[in-house]
Amino acid sequence: MSTESSEKWVLTLTAQTPTNIAVIKYWGKRDEDLILPINDSISVTLDPDHLCTTTSVAVSPAFTHDRMWLNGKEVSLSGGRFQNCLRELRSRASDVEDEEKGVKIAKKDWEKLHLHIVSFNNFPTAAGLASSAAGLACLVFSLAKLMNVKEDHSQLSAIARQGSGSACRSLYGGFVKWIMGKEENGSDSIAVQLADEKHWDDLVIIIAVVSSRQKETSSTSGMRDTVETSELIKHRAKEVVPKRIIQMEEAIKNRDFPAFARLTCADSNQFHAVCLDTLPPIFYMNDTSHRIISAVEKWNRHEGTPQVAYTFDAGPNAVLISHNRKTAALLLQRLLFYFPPQSDIDLNSYVIGDKTILKDAGINEMKDVDALSPPSEIKDNNLSTHRNRGDVSYFICTRPGRGPTVLTDQIRSLINPETGLPK
Amino acid sequence: MSTESSEKWVLTLTAQTPTNIAVIKYWGKRDEDLILPINDSISVTLDPDHLCTTTSVAVSPAFTHDRMWLNGKEVSLSGGRFQNCLRELRSRASDVEDEEKGVKIAKKDWEKLHLHIVSFNNFPTAAGLASSAAGLACLVFSLAKLMNVKEDHSQLSAIARQGSGSACRSLYGGFVKWIMGKEENGSDSIAVQLADEKHWDDLVIIIAVVSSRQKETSSTSGMRDTVETSELIKHRAKEVVPKRIIQMEEAIKNRDFPAFARLTCADSNQFHAVCLDTLPPIFYMNDTSHRIISAVEKWNRHEGTPQVAYTFDAGPNAVLISHNRKTAALLLQRLLFYFPPQSDIDLNSYVIGDKTILKDAGINEMKDVDALSPPSEIKDNNLSTHRNRGDVSYFICTRPGRGPTVLTDQIRSLINPETGLPK
Repeated sequence: MSTESSEKWVLTLTAQTPTNIAVIKYWGKRDEDLILPINDSISVTLDPDHLCTTTSVAVSPAFTHDRMWLNGKEVSLSGGRFQNCLRELRSRASDVEDEEKGVKIAKKDWEKLHLHIVSFNNFPTAAGLASSAAGLACLVFSLAKLMNVKEDHSQLSAIARQGSGSACRSLYGGFVKWIMGKEENGSDSIAVQLADEKHWDDLVIIIAVVSSRQKETSSTSGMRDTVETSELIKHRAKEVVPKRIIQMEEAIKNRDFPAFARLTCADSNQFHAVCLDTLPPIFYMNDTSHRIISAVEKWNRHEGTPQVAYTFDAGPNAVLISHNRKTAALLLQRLLFYFPPQSDIDLNSYVIGDKTILKDAGINEMKDVDALSPPSEIKDNNLSTHRNRGDVSYFICTRPGRGPTVLTDQIRSLINPETGLPK
Repeated sequence: MSTESSEKWVLTLTAQTPTNIAVIKYWGKRDEDLILPINDSISVTLDPDHLCTTTSVAVSPAFTHDRMWLNGKEVSLSGGRFQNCLRELRSRASDVEDEEKGVKIAKKDWEKLHLHIVSFNNFPTAAGLASSAAGLACLVFSLAKLMNVKEDHSQLSAIARQGSGSACRSLYGGFVKWIMGKEENGSDSIAVQLADEKHWDDLVIIIAVVSSRQKETSSTSGMRDTVETSELIKHRAKEVVPKRIIQMEEAIKNRDFPAFARLTCADSNQFHAVCLDTLPPIFYMNDTSHRIISAVEKWNRHEGTPQVAYTFDAGPNAVLISHNRKTAALLLQRLLFYFPPQSDIDLNSYVIGDKTILKDAGINEMKDVDALSPPSEIKDNNLSTHRNRGDVSYFICTRPGRGPTVLTDQIRSLINPETGLPK
């Protein structure tokens, strides 16, 4: 270092990284340490304006050890996965010079310097919305920028993958494929972008955050149990997914919504099927998830062609992908009809994110929700028009979005540039 | 006929047939008309004292057409499946002579004579407890006896199969295998007895009849959709089930409860997994079913060896098979702890069937239910001790039981011997 360690300089960098939702699911590892999957997967990156992690990282000779704060609480970095990411990044760090601050860090210095990492999700961590994917991707991306790691996003994705498998897909915007790879060391198990978010920009995504009493199985232990005990997972990984990957790439390329929806729904269902085929069986969806699926299936069948695709990760929340703004407004009407909020909740906190969809749906206040009439597909068929008040916690309206970005505005930094501690 | 058709004689016969629960599941047909399955299945026959169909059948020259009454209501016999059974039985009928009544029916007369069928289940038809299996088996069995059909039970099972697939397994008591067969005409798709009910007589079965808001998919259309759309069902039928059939036969032969339980649970879960892999997905289990599974899995794991096996058919009801009376009493304590009844229900109607299990569990009145303490497997692990009041409608305590029997006592007949109409 060109500066003495007694000097109090702090170099910081802030970045924002999106979360992503798999439309062809990742479930099952062939290597637990390197996090190598048993099949390719494809995801849609969600708009970071509505769902993202912001991470500020700092380096200073004054830091005595690596530390991390997540959503305001200090968390341990001792886990193997964090350590793998930090080791991989340090080994790829380059010379850094900050002329303004008069700081020079040589490549070899990174091994000795300690880091502070401050991370924040703009959505509830506990809601099961792939917070670890966005979090690990943001940690890797922001540190790579701070440390002048010269590897491209695909190579960074292989580092993020070692922190949390699906994190590798958050290194890109739009539509992303995680190639499982063949190498034992995992070097070819990387994410690539299939198309950016502008390629198919009329898709609208509504997430139903579902209330749950159930304690959930972590995806790490869940997928381990599935690989060890399910008789169906091998057939899925070897025979079913490879065909679906090809079909899904084609559907995305051609913006073929019916094919996209068919594959997305079928693959979500099959993922939950192999969870159920696990010993002991894993249930991520609950009765509310089932009701959402039934409502979407009924509507899609009534229209003769898919209006909406559904997909569920390792939890009961529904991610609903609409063909366009018009179908999204019709979807939101249906969702609010079936799942009105508890009476003490206001509309503004019940539907969050891109609220223009709410306007498109003609819903301006709570009395508009109460006044919603049953969708024609159930009215015509004399099906139950039961409204399940309180079964959904809230809805998030969003869309496919961009990949990670560096936030240059110091005001967005989560770290105090004087102390190197969380603001 | 030796008698004029103006004569008013009525010949009747009454039989009782058990229901059965599959422990290796039947799901998927290779022939819809003949009801030929895509895999073998194995079932346990349930004690007809607690769950059975009673059917009285009558023949009289005074009858103008075939008629049937089910649970007090006349139902149509025009369906292809009823017609198939009636045609098969008539073609196998033999001479019948009732000396007491002075009635002689020649083999060829059966084609011209009409039948009355009166059937009653001693359990709620709507509860999803395989009422069609017991019903069709009883129809075939009672008519075969009335018509002096000389075929053995296996050949009768092939006729019952054409009425309702799983009905063929209700022609025997104990442990029964439905062999899928190879012939195109279905002649070798028959049920055989693996062991009678005395072979393994310490098993105790508790059925939890689960309250449900959901409208269920019929098993006929459900399995058709699965065969047409699931990517996993073929692998299950071709690769998984054949191995499990061999292992299950072995487990039953050796009264090997751990193996029996492992296979039973895994196969129930896999059946529901292929339902979920169907387009649109089929959900038979609900949150209450999931909670019952979780409770059993937790207990089994805590004990280190299976105490109880669970299996679910095309509905949310749990069929729980305990190793013996002692584990059944412990199971019933757990079930009543997790699922106490609504306050307006009395214990006598909440636990029905073999009530001695209730005594063994030390539960004599409702206050004993209220006083139940959390099972040690959740107390020790600080797991939720939430009690889900009202999620179960009632419990039935039963055991493996005998096959069909003719009831000779005229008082048990459901048909008025003078009019040939329901009593």
